[in-house]
Amino acid sequence: MENTAGYLGPPGTFSSEAADKISDDIKPYQSIREVVDAIENREIKLGVLPIENSLEGAVTETMDLLLEVENTIITQEIILPIRYVLLANPGEKLENIDTVISHSQALAQCRELFVEYPHLEKEISSSTAGAAEKVQTKEKAAALAPASCNNYSLDILWEGPKKQYNNETRFIVLGHEPPSPTGDDRTSIVFGIEDSPGALYKSLEIFSKLEINLTRIESRPSKRKLGEYVFYVDFEGHKEERRAYQGLKGVEKNVNFLKVLGSYPKEYGNLGENKITS
Amino acid sequence: MENTAGYLGPPGTFSSEAADKISDDIKPYQSIREVVDAIENREIKLGVLPIENSLEGAVTETMDLLLEVENTIITQEIILPIRYVLLANPGEKLENIDTVISHSQALAQCRELFVEYPHLEKEISSSTAGAAEKVQTKEKAAALAPASCNNYSLDILWEGPKKQYNNETRFIVLGHEPPSPTGDDRTSIVFGIEDSPGALYKSLEIFSKLEINLTRIESRPSKRKLGEYVFYVDFEGHKEERRAYQGLKGVEKNVNFLKVLGSYPKEYGNLGENKITS
Repeated sequence: MENTAGYLGPPGTFSSEAADKISDDIKPYQSIREVVDAIENREIKLGVLPIENSLEGAVTETMDLLLEVENTIITQEIILPIRYVLLANPGEKLENIDTVISHSQALAQCRELFVEYPHLEKEISSSTAGAAEKVQTKEKAAALAPASCNNYSLDILWEGPKKQYNNETRFIVLGHEPPSPTGDDRTSIVFGIEDSPGALYKSLEIFSKLEINLTRIESRPSKRKLGEYVFYVDFEGHKEERRAYQGLKGVEKNVNFLKVLGSYPKEYGNLGENKITS
Repeated sequence: MENTAGYLGPPGTFSSEAADKISDDIKPYQSIREVVDAIENREIKLGVLPIENSLEGAVTETMDLLLEVENTIITQEIILPIRYVLLANPGEKLENIDTVISHSQALAQCRELFVEYPHLEKEISSSTAGAAEKVQTKEKAAALAPASCNNYSLDILWEGPKKQYNNETRFIVLGHEPPSPTGDDRTSIVFGIEDSPGALYKSLEIFSKLEINLTRIESRPSKRKLGEYVFYVDFEGHKEERRAYQGLKGVEKNVNFLKVLGSYPKEYGNLGENKITS
């Protein structure tokens, strides 16, 4: 197994920028599932996956796959500022563009563009880098993409939404070696709860009692029936530290199943982070 | 204002099937936002929007728009079984197909197809009905769509994933007239919480105390910074009933803001529903 970091390609996307931060040897895959399969099968050492965006929320495919992994844990997180620009062939004017091509997340994060220019049609591509490539051979089209995607001498027609100053994406790094406590860590877990009143409340009680800050809670469908969920919770601390360990033991008593996804050093984006809940 | 029900078009999608259930006069719109704008401006009386799928989870665009609406409440819910088939031009064989076109939600819900036939490429369209139309003029392509989309005498190549017996989508109906209590209602709220330990736990305490069943909890980013969320909660009861009213008063004391999205009769899908939490 090489020291390779896999990511959702192609090169030029924010995922490749995140992968660049942790390895000199990065390898693009065509889907999030393929990255996860490669790391589960120990073909690569690290996998970099988007988990959450500050405007669009959870990356649900990554979350659902975390429930399935068996040989892999979260070993690190990376927070990147996200900045899109609108790229078009040289000489094009924004007034003449009729189609904007990009990944669905980027189109959603740049909603402002379509409110400001309602004549623009959206075309969904599988990646922002693919959109920039496609624009070269398409008339009256522009791509929403990171400026780093611009290997084709495209013009920048629009600098991105005003709101993008608070656009950040959190990536997780999957690996096999559990990191030691640093004193400023985060632990990620997923659990299911019983079909009874107060079950979610009870599952959170231990965190409140121990004054452990939850930094995130998300529900996802169990995929068995509508209205049945599993819960993803991030909290402050490392599972090898006393308080976090007690928290895990406590939550275990009040849930159907508990899976610890990993303890890893906290990273801080430019915007800082709230300690919102527990 | 006509008695029109707006929905995310075009005709033939599951959204149009849901709209058919509540009105004889239904009108397609090109986006979820356009449906919401039309009902906010009282151009139409009802709007039908997907909110949650049992396999893929929350429809985040609908949820984010619920935070913005001012003149509109949830007046009803509709639960539909979701069944996709793979449609192709007459005479085509599945072995010869290289591209499957559909809406991103449908492609995700039919993941099994791509595991079984890994050579298939995915092409994202803005709707399942649009995919069925496109297939007619494209060689070696097939569409994942509801069987009801098949107005073009396409062949059914594949009957859909085995898992689809537990595939259901919940739609909400937006309107202006609050429904009276029926004795079997659901109330939907959204709230923000303070930046302090135990805040989420405290906000749920009143539901546990009053033994009110929560049927759903979802977090969405506040869109102000990474790690700051708002929470969408559904619970059993009608806001005009004593216990639900007490619950609302109690939760109001422990949150930053509270918006009541509506109280409306519960519908039950074929699979029934869990009372999971509170």
